[in-house]
Amino acid sequence: MRTVLYPGSFDPLTNGHLDLIERACRLFDHVIVGVAVNAEKHPPFFSRKERMKLIAESCQHLPNVEVVSFQGLLVDAIAEYEANAILRGLRAFSDFEYELQMALMNRSLSEECETIFLMPTPNNSFVSSSIVKEVALLHGDFVQYVPEAIACAMRKKLKRMEK
Amino acid sequence: MRTVLYPGSFDPLTNGHLDLIERACRLFDHVIVGVAVNAEKHPPFFSRKERMKLIAESCQHLPNVEVVSFQGLLVDAIAEYEANAILRGLRAFSDFEYELQMALMNRSLSEECETIFLMPTPNNSFVSSSIVKEVALLHGDFVQYVPEAIACAMRKKLKRMEK
Amino acid sequence: MRTVLYPGSFDPLTNGHLDLIERACRLFDHVIVGVAVNAEKHPPFFSRKERMKLIAESCQHLPNVEVVSFQGLLVDAIAEYEANAILRGLRAFSDFEYELQMALMNRSLSEECETIFLMPTPNNSFVSSSIVKEVALLHGDFVQYVPEAIACAMRKKLKRMEK
Amino acid sequence: MRTVLYPGSFDPLTNGHLDLIERACRLFDHVIVGVAVNAEKHPPFFSRKERMKLIAESCQHLPNVEVVSFQGLLVDAIAEYEANAILRGLRAFSDFEYELQMALMNRSLSEECETIFLMPTPNNSFVSSSIVKEVALLHGDFVQYVPEAIACAMRKKLKRMEK
Amino acid sequence: MRTVLYPGSFDPLTNGHLDLIERACRLFDHVIVGVAVNAEKHPPFFSRKERMKLIAESCQHLPNVEVVSFQGLLVDAIAEYEANAILRGLRAFSDFEYELQMALMNRSLSEECETIFLMPTPNNSFVSSSIVKEVALLHGDFVQYVPEAIACAMRKKLKRMEK
Amino acid sequence: MRTVLYPGSFDPLTNGHLDLIERACRLFDHVIVGVAVNAEKHPPFFSRKERMKLIAESCQHLPNVEVVSFQGLLVDAIAEYEANAILRGLRAFSDFEYELQMALMNRSLSEECETIFLMPTPNNSFVSSSIVKEVALLHGDFVQYVPEAIACAMRKKLKRMEK
Repeated sequence: MRTVLYPGSFDPLTNGHLDLIERACRLFDHVIVGVAVNAEKHPPFFSRKERMKLIAESCQHLPNVEVVSFQGLLVDAIAEYEANAILRGLRAFSDFEYELQMALMNRSLSEECETIFLMPTPNNSFVSSSIVKEVALLHGDFVQYVPEAIACAMRKKLKRMEK
Repeated sequence: MRTVLYPGSFDPLTNGHLDLIERACRLFDHVIVGVAVNAEKHPPFFSRKERMKLIAESCQHLPNVEVVSFQGLLVDAIAEYEANAILRGLRAFSDFEYELQMALMNRSLSEECETIFLMPTPNNSFVSSSIVKEVALLHGDFVQYVPEAIACAMRKKLKRMEK
Repeated sequence: MRTVLYPGSFDPLTNGHLDLIERACRLFDHVIVGVAVNAEKHPPFFSRKERMKLIAESCQHLPNVEVVSFQGLLVDAIAEYEANAILRGLRAFSDFEYELQMALMNRSLSEECETIFLMPTPNNSFVSSSIVKEVALLHGDFVQYVPEAIACAMRKKLKRMEK
Repeated sequence: MRTVLYPGSFDPLTNGHLDLIERACRLFDHVIVGVAVNAEKHPPFFSRKERMKLIAESCQHLPNVEVVSFQGLLVDAIAEYEANAILRGLRAFSDFEYELQMALMNRSLSEECETIFLMPTPNNSFVSSSIVKEVALLHGDFVQYVPEAIACAMRKKLKRMEK
Repeated sequence: MRTVLYPGSFDPLTNGHLDLIERACRLFDHVIVGVAVNAEKHPPFFSRKERMKLIAESCQHLPNVEVVSFQGLLVDAIAEYEANAILRGLRAFSDFEYELQMALMNRSLSEECETIFLMPTPNNSFVSSSIVKEVALLHGDFVQYVPEAIACAMRKKLKRMEK
Repeated sequence: MRTVLYPGSFDPLTNGHLDLIERACRLFDHVIVGVAVNAEKHPPFFSRKERMKLIAESCQHLPNVEVVSFQGLLVDAIAEYEANAILRGLRAFSDFEYELQMALMNRSLSEECETIFLMPTPNNSFVSSSIVKEVALLHGDFVQYVPEAIACAMRKKLKRMEK
């Protein structure tokens, strides 16, 4: 059985993330979405628990997805969940060099820790978690960039923040 | 009439910015310089009002320039000022991918919101607002990188800061 | 009146090119599509005359488009057609540095020769004239990447080549 | 069963290619190395048959590798060999944008045609087939950059060329 | 006598830095390692004094190395220490454009201030001070990425931090 | 004594090349300009002998410059002329990745073969030998991009070609 772990902060999960998870589900037996919880400089928009619940809701149609959270080194999470590889997306507008640097560092820390890159659809290539949050906070139409469950939760959270 | 809006924080306006504005003035009927005031993480060097006044002073020789400030989404400012397009500079040493990502996001938020890119002169390609402020704070000769009105105002502000 | 000249070999015109021309038509009074005919190392797929006719056919719905061909330096064509600026597309997958180099060279050869960059839709960001020809020659479905008039002409030409 | 097809001209196979094949063998059930034979502008160094034989020899220790050759579109080869995905290497010094462009084009030509990227070891990141041939033709020590079977065959071919 | 100044924050010195210093020692008569102390946004891991002592210890085998610290503009440090040029490393995974921008700015601030770039070994191309600190804080095996003297000092500091 | 070898095809030497040679002359004792003569796919504009003579003429004011030509591997030329390092220019619009790849390959072929990178002035950053030839062949004003001796020789050669 081939298992890949897709790490990220997913604060929030975007349509770009979901597109990548759906592609991975067709190529691998088991896809673990790993919410990374260390190194959060700023208070997150959604808590670790909220993010896990929202990802699970958005991936209900994908039977081979599991959602976990992890602290510490990614290579330790890979070992713990017995994943065969790390999964990462390669966007045209992403930091390509940063991705390669991380992949090399992870392989250096744990020899058999391979990183597999997939490419999301270019339609959402300009969407990132931080830009979605920025648009939402400036009252722009962010709903088109995230799964429905995320959009609902963001609207509620924004209302509470404005009170 | 063709109107372009040139958004930025302009804290401060550099010779590179001014060069771009001058080029735009030869190509378009009306050039609006838009000082963006949200998302200022740190206290700015110049206040919103100071920046608007200094840009206006530096553009006195350009009759088709207007200086405004805006809060919120750029696409809303474009609609408010009835601009035909966003204007951005493309420096060799700028974040090209970031510029494309923003242009795509703005077009996604408002279909007719086009972004036009011009290229400033390479002589000032290494000049940016943040590097000018850094040189100034370390007592370097920053005067060559900004219009005269800006240089005067920076010198005064720096003197007051040192007291 | 603002006139821009959009130079290229257009062998053939793709949906990406057409998208850029349509965007330019909304921003400028007059858009000249200039088929460059020097420096053709290989015999072209379509002759200069065929390309001009096919571009004109594909742009019938755009009243402010003119199609010309030119030989020699681009800056000379700009002067001859009294264009205010060169128009170029900036694809995520294009040679960004090459575009800037050319823009600087053209400005160096003729001081007032400005280059304006627009961004085509990302949906066709991977489409280029040479990749369309390669797909066509390998019997792939190239029809989706070019305007209808081009597709018809390519099919005819390919049939004749196979005889 | 997960099958990936690794396309290339492999003229010749380098240690970088072999490293990638070995990594893929640990992650997938079946790895097909596909020697592409169209679009060879210049006469190749090794013929199609020689390349297939040399790759097979160099991969003897890998039971789940198969070597094939194909003509025409890559997406057609993917369908013919019932591969689940295309495999490509992402070198720090490779044309990253070209790889993404090809991956998008292939997905556009055949919707389920996914491309999976792996990263070879950085030790050979500067090695490519063409640079190996150049070093060999200038009598440099190319042996360190290719598998042993390739080195032997290259030495023989070079001797014959010099006669 | 040719003197180069190698500026950086060196918090901490990595094997990549040391590799560059060793290469420079073979090419120049005198190599000054300059610990930059302004613009430290966060409290550093090691103090200025600790860093200078640890660099000196790690470079004991290199007789033509001198360690200094400086505040203010780099061009002023170059003048003070009568260096012929600034030395910088060019990693595949470094910010190439940032390096060129800084080199141009320094030459603009002081005409004769040349920057010389060398390339470190690719084996450590993914190692940076900040990634080493991150691995160390997450209890990963950071020892392989830094000289021995640095590793000892980091272990001690980490123990004290955990108390 | 520090000697660097600056390799290239220099067909023709541009103001960008000359700027780099002048900078190197201030930093090193001896600067060897090495005209590479293998791998000339097309007949060159100037012959090997003409290029050597024109470079020597253009560098008359620089007493520590020597002009040679070499065939075969660059690392062999470095050994033959007892150079301490290869010198290369790093233009904003150059192929940065190609330069690093070559530097790594040369170091791999000969362990002590270091490459030193300098940065030419940005004013000529868009000038290259091939673009100068193209402008000249299209009757553009190429004289501003090359040293005087080169301009004279190009004018003569172009006249003869047109007869």
